[in-house]
Amino acid sequence: MNVMKAMNADNNHYDRRPLADDVAGLVMTARGDRPATLVIRGGTLVNVASGELLQGMSIAVQGARIAYVGRDVSHTIGEHTLVIEAGGRYMAPGLLDGHCHIESSQMTVSSFAKAVLPRGTTGGFFDPHEMANVCGLEGVRLMLEEARMTPLAAYMQVPSCVPSAGPLLETSGAVLGPAEVAEAFTWGPDMIALGEVMNFPGVVYGDDQMLGEISATLRAGRVVDGHFTWPASDPRLPAYAAAGVTGDHECVTPEDVFERVRLGMYAMLRQGSAWQDVARTIRAHTEQGLDSRRIMLVTDDRSADSLVDEGHMDYVVRFAIEQGVKPITAFQMATINTAERFGVARDVGSITPGSYADIILLEGPLEQVKVHTTIAAGRVAAQGGSLKAEWPAFTYPSSIRQSVHVGRRLTPEDFVIAGPIESGMAEARAIQVVENQATTREARISVTIEGGAAKVDVAEGVCTIAVFERHRATGGSAAGFVTGLGLNVPAAIALTVAHDCHNLLVVGNDNQCMAEAANHVISSQGGIAVYTGDGKLTLLPLPVAGLMSDAPPEVVADQSRAINRALSEAGCTLNAALMTISLLALVVIPELRLSDQGLVSITAEGIQKVPLFLAGE
Amino acid sequence: MNVMKAMNADNNHYDRRPLADDVAGLVMTARGDRPATLVIRGGTLVNVASGELLQGMSIAVQGARIAYVGRDVSHTIGEHTLVIEAGGRYMAPGLLDGHCHIESSQMTVSSFAKAVLPRGTTGGFFDPHEMANVCGLEGVRLMLEEARMTPLAAYMQVPSCVPSAGPLLETSGAVLGPAEVAEAFTWGPDMIALGEVMNFPGVVYGDDQMLGEISATLRAGRVVDGHFTWPASDPRLPAYAAAGVTGDHECVTPEDVFERVRLGMYAMLRQGSAWQDVARTIRAHTEQGLDSRRIMLVTDDRSADSLVDEGHMDYVVRFAIEQGVKPITAFQMATINTAERFGVARDVGSITPGSYADIILLEGPLEQVKVHTTIAAGRVAAQGGSLKAEWPAFTYPSSIRQSVHVGRRLTPEDFVIAGPIESGMAEARAIQVVENQATTREARISVTIEGGAAKVDVAEGVCTIAVFERHRATGGSAAGFVTGLGLNVPAAIALTVAHDCHNLLVVGNDNQCMAEAANHVISSQGGIAVYTGDGKLTLLPLPVAGLMSDAPPEVVADQSRAINRALSEAGCTLNAALMTISLLALVVIPELRLSDQGLVSITAEGIQKVPLFLAGE
Repeated sequence: MNVMKAMNADNNHYDRRPLADDVAGLVMTARGDRPATLVIRGGTLVNVASGELLQGMSIAVQGARIAYVGRDVSHTIGEHTLVIEAGGRYMAPGLLDGHCHIESSQMTVSSFAKAVLPRGTTGGFFDPHEMANVCGLEGVRLMLEEARMTPLAAYMQVPSCVPSAGPLLETSGAVLGPAEVAEAFTWGPDMIALGEVMNFPGVVYGDDQMLGEISATLRAGRVVDGHFTWPASDPRLPAYAAAGVTGDHECVTPEDVFERVRLGMYAMLRQGSAWQDVARTIRAHTEQGLDSRRIMLVTDDRSADSLVDEGHMDYVVRFAIEQGVKPITAFQMATINTAERFGVARDVGSITPGSYADIILLEGPLEQVKVHTTIAAGRVAAQGGSLKAEWPAFTYPSSIRQSVHVGRRLTPEDFVIAGPIESGMAEARAIQVVENQATTREARISVTIEGGAAKVDVAEGVCTIAVFERHRATGGSAAGFVTGLGLNVPAAIALTVAHDCHNLLVVGNDNQCMAEAANHVISSQGGIAVYTGDGKLTLLPLPVAGLMSDAPPEVVADQSRAINRALSEAGCTLNAALMTISLLALVVIPELRLSDQGLVSITAEGIQKVPLFLAGE
Repeated sequence: MNVMKAMNADNNHYDRRPLADDVAGLVMTARGDRPATLVIRGGTLVNVASGELLQGMSIAVQGARIAYVGRDVSHTIGEHTLVIEAGGRYMAPGLLDGHCHIESSQMTVSSFAKAVLPRGTTGGFFDPHEMANVCGLEGVRLMLEEARMTPLAAYMQVPSCVPSAGPLLETSGAVLGPAEVAEAFTWGPDMIALGEVMNFPGVVYGDDQMLGEISATLRAGRVVDGHFTWPASDPRLPAYAAAGVTGDHECVTPEDVFERVRLGMYAMLRQGSAWQDVARTIRAHTEQGLDSRRIMLVTDDRSADSLVDEGHMDYVVRFAIEQGVKPITAFQMATINTAERFGVARDVGSITPGSYADIILLEGPLEQVKVHTTIAAGRVAAQGGSLKAEWPAFTYPSSIRQSVHVGRRLTPEDFVIAGPIESGMAEARAIQVVENQATTREARISVTIEGGAAKVDVAEGVCTIAVFERHRATGGSAAGFVTGLGLNVPAAIALTVAHDCHNLLVVGNDNQCMAEAANHVISSQGGIAVYTGDGKLTLLPLPVAGLMSDAPPEVVADQSRAINRALSEAGCTLNAALMTISLLALVVIPELRLSDQGLVSITAEGIQKVPLFLAGE
């Protein structure tokens, strides 16, 4: 890549102004009366609007936007124009992630941007749902403000289910409702949608809160994202669609994809770190011929290490192509389709005049999706895998960096589970982990009770799980059993990343280790700690809301890998073990979960608290 | 069609409320807790979202919107539900016209709706450009108010070029600018777009007025429609696109279609009464494989008789299918593509839960597009070719019905053209009509001058053309020559439909006939009159702004046919003669036109007044 002129060092503000502000300047450049700020010359244009690959094309940029696309841009080149010779390389629109929780990367927006820009992601539709559960609307607002400082076209959603299933099942740091949703949409056009409405039974059965949030969203002219996990054949899916939900990433079968598109939704095909649906869902298009225009590729949740090692949307697009999608179509699924779904195709998702200059140059064949240069908002943001963009560090207020309020140090006694009898055997519910799935099973186990306390059977693979309220130091906590983790030495993991309320979750087979791990997380003001019987501590500090680190991506990825390694060394060899554990408190996905208020059963009939022990049932 | 229960007679208000207002009720019906108002059972669904034809489908409607789509809607049927048995017929979304000037039908919105509803049109994107040139923003507002009373999903655009090329070339009844555009967008979400920006040179060269209107539109979150008639290869097309123009119906070649789509626009393929581009432009898709998602079918201008005789969008869709487009794709081009282009796909353009219940049932094969029943906003609007819907008559104020202000009766002397010399021959410019094209040619003719006055050479097919200002009785007028009309007996036509300023246009080969025709139009307060030397008058009264009739469609069609017949009997056998003549004053389409201010030349170099006689050049 032959960069003829260095970027102006002082030109480091990514000004994604409305098109209305830029029209006059763009037209001046396009007609040749004002030099372009950037020109990319002589590449093969990946034209996602027409579905073509066009050789010998060039692009002229004025500020943050594309002023001209054509075979000859010589009339736009002036003395100070930065000219990049594409040398025949593919020039594609920057990739968009159509559904993503940045917090799942355990990184702040800035660190996330640093990880994904070199991979060709220039924008996304982010649901700061975890942050909202801890810090409420203030947290959402802060993430929006941080996002606006990065080169990304970062569109934020208002989380819809905070807490996920209402305040009667778990204790969150904040509660959002229709009034908060309406307020958030006044912040700017980059507040783009109502985040995934996970309480789909609430929608179908007319919950005032859910319908109120949806109405507030529609009145603001925004769209509603969905999350519907009943089967595609369920007759309640059309009811969910009738409420105005027009996108859903909970497609796990080709039929799920078909039904959503037939009902007017966009089907979002997910390739996260732990939930990898594309290989199966893409068959709706590749094998069954479904029109691709309403199919999008999304990540939902990707961990720091998978972002650093595998990539972000570049990886997902490549994977889709490997499944048999035409390369141009796969690019459409991560660019123009996504932009159209959210009503921002005039700004992002294609290399067309007037759009933001979010452009990636690729090395080698299109199907390899190997990003060499990333242009974001008209400036070189990354090149050769290295970040070039700079922007000021975003400082979160101390209330956000001091968010773990348990109120005391924990002791091994905090992890003792009282039995229903003084001694003997008692049947109990246990959360059974299923590898590579977000769902758990409700298992039944026999528990030995001695002196009124349950004795966890380590040899049978049973662990204790405990959740401590950590938002307002209410002192609330609950405990139960979990199987399938595989721990085979004394060990525990404690974490403040515990979907969705992000209370302090502790899992282990040794009460001393559990207390140690938990106290290290408390004293770090959030994070993930693994503590083993040999006294070894592995720590991933997450000081921002107890959810995110502002360390560089490689550092977070290293720390994240270390946590997984520590878990693995303790016998937990599950794929994406950390993400799986962090969902054990998620009281909206079947079948059994633990919140700070106790065990929660989630079935097709509904969501309810259930007792740990079955005696008396 | 077996209608089991009659519609409630009092239920005659077409309430197209925002989805937010309907969400709760739709979900109740969808889940079976509130009976549907209408059910259509057992048809083949034309699913334009998924691109499929699905047999055995049913639709449940609550009020104006679709609550449920599925194989079994029995849970939505109650005692008062109107059930229509589709009997296997195709159920398609109501058709949308993506670019249409209602005034071209010479009918008011209500009469237009009566003409097109039985043909399956349930909505459109209308540019009341003619009305605006006569009555300004008030006229636009009145047409919007009338449209809201009809069953149509009628989206109105703010005309952008009033007058078409600025007030220095012609005299209009009103002038619109950025402030008026901004005001119009405050009227409601059905004010949808900035109408075709015909002053494309103004956009490309940075005209403040044009860029101001575009900026006002973008700031209001609306889209900008285009009108670019330079060749597709013109390097100024990307400049036009950079200004934010995202749709254009001035595509006349497949290459025009490709270039617009490549630049991020929607290509609108036009099949009007006079301008019929689809046979040629559709080849971009049928022969050259262009992705169809950004291709739309539109009519632009269709006369009353062509609406009554041929149809509206049903005709255009059928025609596209005849050109080789897959039927489902052709339907997409007149439904979902159009709705997506204007950002209203949640409300119109597909049969999906939450959308307005705009549904057509077809007789026979899909490709015949034979509309049997039209449902608009959840109610049967037409059946078996007959209108069933009723709505109150809309009354235009007297200022709109008394809009022809010439200030005096005209006499034969008003049509005498003064020559540049006292007697002899003089060379003059003449407007040469070209059949089936909007463009004219600039011809040169030799004119005999006698006693200082031009003597029109009837034998050579030369006619006199005159335009009289008619908005404020300024007394302004101009005259010139036109060839190619074919009149071979003494005859004249006078009309207040004279694009775009709609001054009083008179064309003829006999000054007495011209005065008679003109005076009949003046005394009728607008319309079209043909007067022949045998004293025969044929009149189409257009009392609303001198542009539209509120008579039933068949009456207007008959009167329109009578005008064309009278012209034909006088020797003018041009196809769509009336529409062709009405464009002779349109000072933005090449090459030569006459306004009330004189002859205007339109070339690729620009638009300028030119003298009638060439002496002295």
